[in-house]
Amino acid sequence: MRLINEYQHFAERLADVSAEVIEPYFRSTLDVKHKEGSVYDPVTLADRKAEQAMRELIQDQYPTHGILGEEEGSLLGSSELTWVLDPIDGTRSFIIGLPLWGTLIALNDGQRPILGVMNQPFTGERYIGTPEGAWLNGNKLKTRQCPDISSATLMCTTLQLFDTAVRRDAFQAVADQAKLVRFGGDCYAYCMLASGFVDVVIEASLQPYDIQALIPIVEGAGGVITTWDGRSAQQGGTIIACGDRSLHAQLIKMLKHAT
Amino acid sequence: MRLINEYQHFAERLADVSAEVIEPYFRSTLDVKHKEGSVYDPVTLADRKAEQAMRELIQDQYPTHGILGEEEGSLLGSSELTWVLDPIDGTRSFIIGLPLWGTLIALNDGQRPILGVMNQPFTGERYIGTPEGAWLNGNKLKTRQCPDISSATLMCTTLQLFDTAVRRDAFQAVADQAKLVRFGGDCYAYCMLASGFVDVVIEASLQPYDIQALIPIVEGAGGVITTWDGRSAQQGGTIIACGDRSLHAQLIKMLKHAT
Repeated sequence: MRLINEYQHFAERLADVSAEVIEPYFRSTLDVKHKEGSVYDPVTLADRKAEQAMRELIQDQYPTHGILGEEEGSLLGSSELTWVLDPIDGTRSFIIGLPLWGTLIALNDGQRPILGVMNQPFTGERYIGTPEGAWLNGNKLKTRQCPDISSATLMCTTLQLFDTAVRRDAFQAVADQAKLVRFGGDCYAYCMLASGFVDVVIEASLQPYDIQALIPIVEGAGGVITTWDGRSAQQGGTIIACGDRSLHAQLIKMLKHAT
Repeated sequence: MRLINEYQHFAERLADVSAEVIEPYFRSTLDVKHKEGSVYDPVTLADRKAEQAMRELIQDQYPTHGILGEEEGSLLGSSELTWVLDPIDGTRSFIIGLPLWGTLIALNDGQRPILGVMNQPFTGERYIGTPEGAWLNGNKLKTRQCPDISSATLMCTTLQLFDTAVRRDAFQAVADQAKLVRFGGDCYAYCMLASGFVDVVIEASLQPYDIQALIPIVEGAGGVITTWDGRSAQQGGTIIACGDRSLHAQLIKMLKHAT
């Protein structure tokens, strides 16, 4: 656990550095435009610059570690440890000014993500998951019990994630039974699940960097997160997260054929 | 304008008082539950208590003014001035922990809302609209130009607002042409439009207290907000807000038959 503490401390440095780069671009309009020249795409600029800053810090501090980032792809390390980075998860929220995006930072030990951070600098929220638990700004998180889908609140970023009719239908069959369905959220939805305010998140077409940081946060809070057929979520794809283990077992039965 | 300044100062006091009441309930779980007894509905409790607190302050300071509130209905005043209150607009966001709800406070002079406040205490955002303009935390807001629906970002809280097939179809016809459609948001969507990050908000089935505070904010930032047939938005119903006046004129043509 000594190393986990060291890596957690380092991951928080990455989050700080990333936030410093991204914040001037969030809700920016003309002021930044004039600095950047004629073509101005704040979310892409912020994404790239933040990933560069995090990569430099990692290569300086842990030159043997691998890096997998949304913007610049994969850098193999000689160590089994790989940092998995998504500077801005929730780019659509970012673009329209909503504070529902987050910076995702995971450390994978070659088997699984052992450390995850979701950092939301505008609201000042930092979610951290480790093998010892999950926390928001130092406060322990716990998912809530909800064994029945008819009592459940379900979140999903957008129906556009379901790229086949069978997947869309499988999602809809669950959604039709839920008490409340809410779209939007990206990484924020998983953090609300870890916090005990949302019961289920169902998505598809996710990349490894979209989900790895969220696995220790959901699991550390007592939840379950897998693919639709119950395998490890770390490679992305079809994802279901539940705060209640028994609800997860029920919903897997409804979704696994569409994985 | 002297009176507007006085009323703005007072509306900010109402926002402060409301925030103080609401904040302990946002993202609350067991701690508040034990204080409240066995039945625990945090959003209803927060809504009621915040409206009570604001009503008391209004009746103390301006006993002749009318009050229209979401929770306790209408109190006729001997003055032409009426305060229009919605302590928590966006109760679904509130329930699931998302910071996209807001406290809406409007002052109506008998003709129209002349002052509007949207207060989001978790993120520390206070949007204010007056006949002189609109501001977020003291920074002037300006809608952006977007004369073409194919370049527009469109927001709407939920399709469930469209209570007839003709309304849903009219919305969908516009949504199909938009560049980006995002659901969720409630009052926050109108504030993002006033801030220049969203181009269109289209909703229906709104109440006067859902919309009155947002009218001076949208108009003060240079936008247009009306019913789908171009009349005053202050009674709620079918609502369209645009940052760009020419886009509003185009979209009204697509929507007015479904008002």
